[in-house]
Amino acid sequence: MGIEPWEVLDSKYLHERARVDICRVNGKTIEPVMLEFGTWVTIVAITKNKEVVLVRQYRHGVQKILLELPGGGVHQEETPLEAAKRELLEETGYTSDTFVQTGIVSPNPCNHNNQAVSFLALNAEKISEQNLDDTEEIQVSLKPLEEAVQWIKSGELLQSLHVSAFFFALSYMGFLD
Amino acid sequence: MGIEPWEVLDSKYLHERARVDICRVNGKTIEPVMLEFGTWVTIVAITKNKEVVLVRQYRHGVQKILLELPGGGVHQEETPLEAAKRELLEETGYTSDTFVQTGIVSPNPCNHNNQAVSFLALNAEKISEQNLDDTEEIQVSLKPLEEAVQWIKSGELLQSLHVSAFFFALSYMGFLD
Repeated sequence: MGIEPWEVLDSKYLHERARVDICRVNGKTIEPVMLEFGTWVTIVAITKNKEVVLVRQYRHGVQKILLELPGGGVHQEETPLEAAKRELLEETGYTSDTFVQTGIVSPNPCNHNNQAVSFLALNAEKISEQNLDDTEEIQVSLKPLEEAVQWIKSGELLQSLHVSAFFFALSYMGFLD
Repeated sequence: MGIEPWEVLDSKYLHERARVDICRVNGKTIEPVMLEFGTWVTIVAITKNKEVVLVRQYRHGVQKILLELPGGGVHQEETPLEAAKRELLEETGYTSDTFVQTGIVSPNPCNHNNQAVSFLALNAEKISEQNLDDTEEIQVSLKPLEEAVQWIKSGELLQSLHVSAFFFALSYMGFLD
């Protein structure tokens, strides 16, 4: 017997971006909550001095201030590459002459409908100040690449999307060969 | 000025496991939806023949049948290690004499409150048939380790939680040294 998609008996919105689907699975009814988002981007930006550009911000799911990678949502008129360039510049003031798309992952294929595109930005340089949204509070922090790798290995980069982006970046740079 | 946690003005449940928080951030009001889960586990199980034990199942968020790592939720009376052993055995029929905890990540620190513990199970052996929940339909599939690494590098292991678990497993096995 093959694996079948779940039969959706009914579907309703609980809130903007949050939907509950009433599903029939093997004769049982389940009610998973689905989150709807557009495409996201994550950027591993590495400066000419081999430092990774990181951002510190509050994450309400875990209610902690975390050190993470820059990233954000793709706007309607943008490509993921354009969004990656814009988000890196807005959140950190850095830009790069070399953006490489390194991978695509799902934040969580069980309950997120979207995908996140990972980029590596080489030779990153600071060209401006931050340009943050009204609800963003972000501090920029640099970490030497080798130190960043050890930091991620130790599990301190908490967000799985960002560990994945680092996996793809390290793979592109030949660390996994 | 330091980074501050968001002020929660009000909070209400939309559904089991789904909560909306009315938050005040820099004078603006936002209403993020939060998903509440217990701890999860993810297992990179590698057989004596250096094959990775994978599972194929339907994921309703992306509405696709995906090839992924085994994993699941930690029961109330369990440790993450006990849950990892149980989930691997239930979903695949495999067990191992060597489980190593390799890392902890957040599925998404923006909207999930929980953490996922990654395990590496070495010398995995099939000792029984699957023992699935009523709503689970899972097919087991083996992939040689080197092939699995290439498969993940190419972005085909879609779930970021699982790419992260692989990152930690490869790091533990010395691939990143």
